[in-house]
Amino acid sequence: MAVTTRNNSDKRVIRTKKAIRAALFKIMESKDISSITISELTTLANVNRRTFYTHYNNITDILDETESEIVDAVTAIISHFDSGSLVNSTYTLFLELSKLITEQYGFYFHLMKSDFRGVLVSRMKNVLKASAGKILGHFTITSEEKYVMLMSAFINGGFLNLFLEWNKSGQSVSIETAAKVASVMVDFCVKNVPEITDTLNKTDFTKK
Amino acid sequence: MAVTTRNNSDKRVIRTKKAIRAALFKIMESKDISSITISELTTLANVNRRTFYTHYNNITDILDETESEIVDAVTAIISHFDSGSLVNSTYTLFLELSKLITEQYGFYFHLMKSDFRGVLVSRMKNVLKASAGKILGHFTITSEEKYVMLMSAFINGGFLNLFLEWNKSGQSVSIETAAKVASVMVDFCVKNVPEITDTLNKTDFTKK
Repeated sequence: MAVTTRNNSDKRVIRTKKAIRAALFKIMESKDISSITISELTTLANVNRRTFYTHYNNITDILDETESEIVDAVTAIISHFDSGSLVNSTYTLFLELSKLITEQYGFYFHLMKSDFRGVLVSRMKNVLKASAGKILGHFTITSEEKYVMLMSAFINGGFLNLFLEWNKSGQSVSIETAAKVASVMVDFCVKNVPEITDTLNKTDFTKK
Repeated sequence: MAVTTRNNSDKRVIRTKKAIRAALFKIMESKDISSITISELTTLANVNRRTFYTHYNNITDILDETESEIVDAVTAIISHFDSGSLVNSTYTLFLELSKLITEQYGFYFHLMKSDFRGVLVSRMKNVLKASAGKILGHFTITSEEKYVMLMSAFINGGFLNLFLEWNKSGQSVSIETAAKVASVMVDFCVKNVPEITDTLNKTDFTKK
């Protein structure tokens, strides 16, 4: 009996949070988040003020929660990343990321399209950084560590921006084309770490 | 006489805005922006509520104004970008960007380090996009336009992220090293657009 009660209460929490989120995203379509009040949010969500404060401290907590879910899902996708076949893995990673965003968080990305919260992008980059460390790790034999760290930032930022720009462009080219370009670019940069290092060591910049 | 009055009044506006900004950045060190009220801001800035509303509609307007200044400064730097010597230009661009941020907007970037406003990054990317269009434009002869658009997103995102990550790392390597890696990576990707296109045309991804 206790379990049933617990389940019912869990379900109620999920339902309440869902209502609050839906209401927030609805209001955000016409208002800047900083000017939304708890009162108008709870009124639209048909939830008590006190219930709101049981789950959240403020409105941005709701965004944080949504983004944590997204980051967890991205982390799960990346954990299956196989550095053995880089070009195929990047291709699959791109497709799965798109699927996640289109099917499950489409509304959120639509909302955030023109004013992405930097914190989400940062967190997604951190996840990518961890996987890039795995792949680029062995290049510290052929290249200096400081170079590898910066190259990795370039490659991750490139991958993520290609994804964001493709999403922002209203997905003007097919997902397969976007995934193909992303994977070939990543693969090309990673495979050429030794050559790029060589160029770095030879290039001399005369300061003006 | 009228001119003197005008000058004095301009100076007063600048002084008022400066006080409001300084107060906001001070409060932001310990508080999330969404929970800052106009009252505490004007109290700390020692400015009337009505004066505040003469210049701004809400608190995020202050961030928008600061970021517009940053974007204008970045645009000015990029307008001198010379696509003739890509590797040297990117190097100089990186150095000048860092100088701007360190010397003039250091406080802002320090504040935003862990939670960058996506809108600023977006606007900086748009500026970079315009210059990338100039450079990559002629590659549409050797590559399909849709590929070039995506490659450009990759290169811009890579450049910007290398810059942001370097800044975030507490500038753990010298600015010259970071600028060198950024410029060699950009140059390497751009110069190899024909080869990457070739790979793209040959690579076949079998969908699972």
